[in-house]
Amino acid sequence: MIDLVDVQAGKPKIQVPLTSVGLKGITYPVRVRRDGKEIDLLTRIDIFVDLPANRKGADFSRKIEAINEIILGNSVVPGVEELSGKIAEKVLEKLPYSTSCRVKISADYLREKQSDEKKRQIVIPYGLEGESVVSRSGTHYKMVGVNVTGMNACPCAMETTRALISRDFPGNDEFLSKIPSITHNQRNHVRIMIEVPPGRDVEADDLIEASEKVLGGSLHSLLKRLDEGELVYQAHLHPKFVEDIVREISQEILTRYVDFPDETRIIISSESEESIHPHNAFAEIDSTLGKIRSGTVKAD
Amino acid sequence: MIDLVDVQAGKPKIQVPLTSVGLKGITYPVRVRRDGKEIDLLTRIDIFVDLPANRKGADFSRKIEAINEIILGNSVVPGVEELSGKIAEKVLEKLPYSTSCRVKISADYLREKQSDEKKRQIVIPYGLEGESVVSRSGTHYKMVGVNVTGMNACPCAMETTRALISRDFPGNDEFLSKIPSITHNQRNHVRIMIEVPPGRDVEADDLIEASEKVLGGSLHSLLKRLDEGELVYQAHLHPKFVEDIVREISQEILTRYVDFPDETRIIISSESEESIHPHNAFAEIDSTLGKIRSGTVKAD
Amino acid sequence: MIDLVDVQAGKPKIQVPLTSVGLKGITYPVRVRRDGKEIDLLTRIDIFVDLPANRKGADFSRKIEAINEIILGNSVVPGVEELSGKIAEKVLEKLPYSTSCRVKISADYLREKQSDEKKRQIVIPYGLEGESVVSRSGTHYKMVGVNVTGMNACPCAMETTRALISRDFPGNDEFLSKIPSITHNQRNHVRIMIEVPPGRDVEADDLIEASEKVLGGSLHSLLKRLDEGELVYQAHLHPKFVEDIVREISQEILTRYVDFPDETRIIISSESEESIHPHNAFAEIDSTLGKIRSGTVKAD
Amino acid sequence: MIDLVDVQAGKPKIQVPLTSVGLKGITYPVRVRRDGKEIDLLTRIDIFVDLPANRKGADFSRKIEAINEIILGNSVVPGVEELSGKIAEKVLEKLPYSTSCRVKISADYLREKQSDEKKRQIVIPYGLEGESVVSRSGTHYKMVGVNVTGMNACPCAMETTRALISRDFPGNDEFLSKIPSITHNQRNHVRIMIEVPPGRDVEADDLIEASEKVLGGSLHSLLKRLDEGELVYQAHLHPKFVEDIVREISQEILTRYVDFPDETRIIISSESEESIHPHNAFAEIDSTLGKIRSGTVKAD
Repeated sequence: MIDLVDVQAGKPKIQVPLTSVGLKGITYPVRVRRDGKEIDLLTRIDIFVDLPANRKGADFSRKIEAINEIILGNSVVPGVEELSGKIAEKVLEKLPYSTSCRVKISADYLREKQSDEKKRQIVIPYGLEGESVVSRSGTHYKMVGVNVTGMNACPCAMETTRALISRDFPGNDEFLSKIPSITHNQRNHVRIMIEVPPGRDVEADDLIEASEKVLGGSLHSLLKRLDEGELVYQAHLHPKFVEDIVREISQEILTRYVDFPDETRIIISSESEESIHPHNAFAEIDSTLGKIRSGTVKAD
Repeated sequence: MIDLVDVQAGKPKIQVPLTSVGLKGITYPVRVRRDGKEIDLLTRIDIFVDLPANRKGADFSRKIEAINEIILGNSVVPGVEELSGKIAEKVLEKLPYSTSCRVKISADYLREKQSDEKKRQIVIPYGLEGESVVSRSGTHYKMVGVNVTGMNACPCAMETTRALISRDFPGNDEFLSKIPSITHNQRNHVRIMIEVPPGRDVEADDLIEASEKVLGGSLHSLLKRLDEGELVYQAHLHPKFVEDIVREISQEILTRYVDFPDETRIIISSESEESIHPHNAFAEIDSTLGKIRSGTVKAD
Repeated sequence: MIDLVDVQAGKPKIQVPLTSVGLKGITYPVRVRRDGKEIDLLTRIDIFVDLPANRKGADFSRKIEAINEIILGNSVVPGVEELSGKIAEKVLEKLPYSTSCRVKISADYLREKQSDEKKRQIVIPYGLEGESVVSRSGTHYKMVGVNVTGMNACPCAMETTRALISRDFPGNDEFLSKIPSITHNQRNHVRIMIEVPPGRDVEADDLIEASEKVLGGSLHSLLKRLDEGELVYQAHLHPKFVEDIVREISQEILTRYVDFPDETRIIISSESEESIHPHNAFAEIDSTLGKIRSGTVKAD
Repeated sequence: MIDLVDVQAGKPKIQVPLTSVGLKGITYPVRVRRDGKEIDLLTRIDIFVDLPANRKGADFSRKIEAINEIILGNSVVPGVEELSGKIAEKVLEKLPYSTSCRVKISADYLREKQSDEKKRQIVIPYGLEGESVVSRSGTHYKMVGVNVTGMNACPCAMETTRALISRDFPGNDEFLSKIPSITHNQRNHVRIMIEVPPGRDVEADDLIEASEKVLGGSLHSLLKRLDEGELVYQAHLHPKFVEDIVREISQEILTRYVDFPDETRIIISSESEESIHPHNAFAEIDSTLGKIRSGTVKAD
């Protein structure tokens, strides 16, 4: 029998409280069951706690045990946000010296669906995110989110090219002003994170739907020529800055969660891999539903 | 002469204020001159502003112009934090509708030095960071920071292996308790960011020195066998958790910046690529000098 | 009804044959059934064909259709190497102008198992790879492989530290020479790819077993203190260069595939994230079983 | 004085030759002087040698010494390909048991230039690559290369959208057939690597020029609206598949290196980050100048 000193529980030589101590990049298989549908996810989990001045180590292996008990102990979970909360609670149970725990979970999320035309089966890659902060006094917040990739076409360059085409191919300006003109377009990565108020539910698929409505659809691999043409056509009929995408998604969210309280936190971002630049363009709202509700002005 | 509509200045259909609109990943060559020494950096710059509800686009090209005027207009700058502040000011000048601007700059930073023994020339790779937030009422904050990579050896596993060796090679426990035992050790990434109070200066090289003092040195490519052995030996004579590294660096910082005000923000983190795990261990203090000053208890 | 010109089938202005035209990074969900066990993988697929001088485009959408018909048409596949071959065959069927097709598939592969002691359930992350080249005259080759991460301890630095400890703690050299001394140790990434001869089978789990036998186990997240100590202890009782790891795995492979033909291609590599350096150490055999069989000399 | 056993020089237990043993990701500052112009590069260097069956370790630290003597010993080098050859020669000098050495060098390469209009200063980010293989019998080959990022617009989707616009905005088909129609466009990454025959020189800037001629320019950060519009306009006037880009660059290369021998190796690739797909499209020629010379058919 080997007798081990508890090194973690010792007093550190220098005693100063640490804001955040944890593990990054733990991988676990998770089976989500929701509305009778089952999805297998390969999750990436990060866990953080605070550490008081008089405790040397934050006992990392107990954090892993907490994941184990929650994930491997249950055959299925209802969602990644729920899972992040449950893990955070279990970690706090195991680490009596910490006052709060933050857990972040992310996963790829592939959905198969029928493309509208010809009923071809397609696979669309999304991302899922869940995050919870739990303290001794209860759940501080629980958020769920999605990553969706679509195409956006720049409204500004479109007007410049219209002028250039008009200069080189004169005499059809009225027609030219009606049709969509060429512009740069690119992969646009949308991310939505929304707080889930107690007793409420947010479906990741609804957040995806909100994003796709604004983006005009998601990128996927199978596209026959007409689907391809339509996606390009729609993106150019509705050219959008990253700013526009974020603003429009914010309104989709307001519509879908009308009864969520004003203090509900919401983060919406859009990042476009500019096809005319080596850098990316980015826009974000990090706010509450209440502020967006009161701050929005609809143009006439 | 082509006449263009100002699309960016239009009113958006949906008017809601955006928290953060900007560009990520702009690359620029920057020459820093400091204490008579010149360094050429290849910087990566991110710029963000807020955007009011009634403005459609945040005019990205003017942000780039701001960088151009600041960087290409000046042959040299005194540091990346200074540069981030100057760019943020210039951006605000050009975008009258935004109330504040945040600029982040990062760069690889290679230093050549003489290794102590035998006077061999070595090259050590570090990272530099600068970040400023400037609003209409003045500079909100200006931070400078470094990334340093060293080795840390785990104090906890060291005690376990001591017990295992004692079990298998009995009879020398007193000697065994004096020498460093085997344990897992790994690359440890330290990051320090410190606010630079008005009228003060922070040398990145001092932050590097503080990190290296705690880490027992930085990783570099040229190591003859004895240097190598010494680095391993020192790391095992002074085994440290990520928690210990952050705590010890916090005290190094207190010592070096005794006259900086209590409200000075300081972020110190340590992330170790655990050689016995597929995940990383992480510890961080995100606080103020004042809180660390008052919160620190020295163990007897 | 929209009538479209077949742009892909046109003659290019400049006619020169292309070695490799294809798609990178297609993601698909795949269910593998093997020995009655089912695994769900999220695969990343790359497809390449050659393109003759007189054909403008390689019709990317037909490549995706090929994946669709093979993956979505079959509820399960027997393995990623089999799948890569089937997709390559289907692509050649659809692209009559190409003479050969190469398909590469990779996926994360999580395995749950009981840790030996205390029967705790653990999750180990691996990688799977499959690659096939198919031409008009048949399958050129089909390979399967794994990615396994373990720990390696450096035998060279171990001798240096022994000398340093002996210098500072004199009088116990005999004991010191018997116990493992401290050294740098780190994450070591092993990759094995082996050709699957016609009519034979290679189990990815066997390749993993071969790697783990040499590495002394795989890294995983849950480790109680004794498991942790044992892993470190074993790695130091058997310190290994990346060169040693590759050589030892080559012998494990010879033992397991004695009846595979001499011309069977085999690639074995080991890359260690050196904990005393900012660079990685790497060793590889890219050879055939025959050459390894005849080239191996066992030391006395 | 510490006496150390030479662990590297020992005989391995299992003796089997290794194809490739080396170091990946060494960073060094390099000053290139060429045509009187000086450029400071932050290089990433990989070094590999073969290792015979009877040698335990490939002595990594001597490889670093070789870099040190070549780079730090010389204040300037004429180019990255030259440097890769010199390091490979020096490594072979230091490792008598290896028969050949391969060295790969890569670096970011920022060029400042005047944009044509208005004489604005712009910064364009490129990549440089050098690779040499040297054996006991001399230099096997020496290659130099560049990475250039531009925009490409898809010719296929352009025809589909023309048909869609014609359907929805009928009566102007003749005009519509003359102007460029909307299509997906994206960042396109070109890579050229060319062997440098003995006694000849290849200017990286010429390879960049060849790429930019085909791509219609490189992406950079500063673009005023008209520059932006022109870049988009030109890309749509000359829509290109990745296949077209590779074919056209191959002809640019033939024109520029008419007197290079037929056996000169040449690799040209183009990878586009498809704005309508989550995957990338890729085309490559990996061939010799001779084969491209004889294999090219110019369409009438």
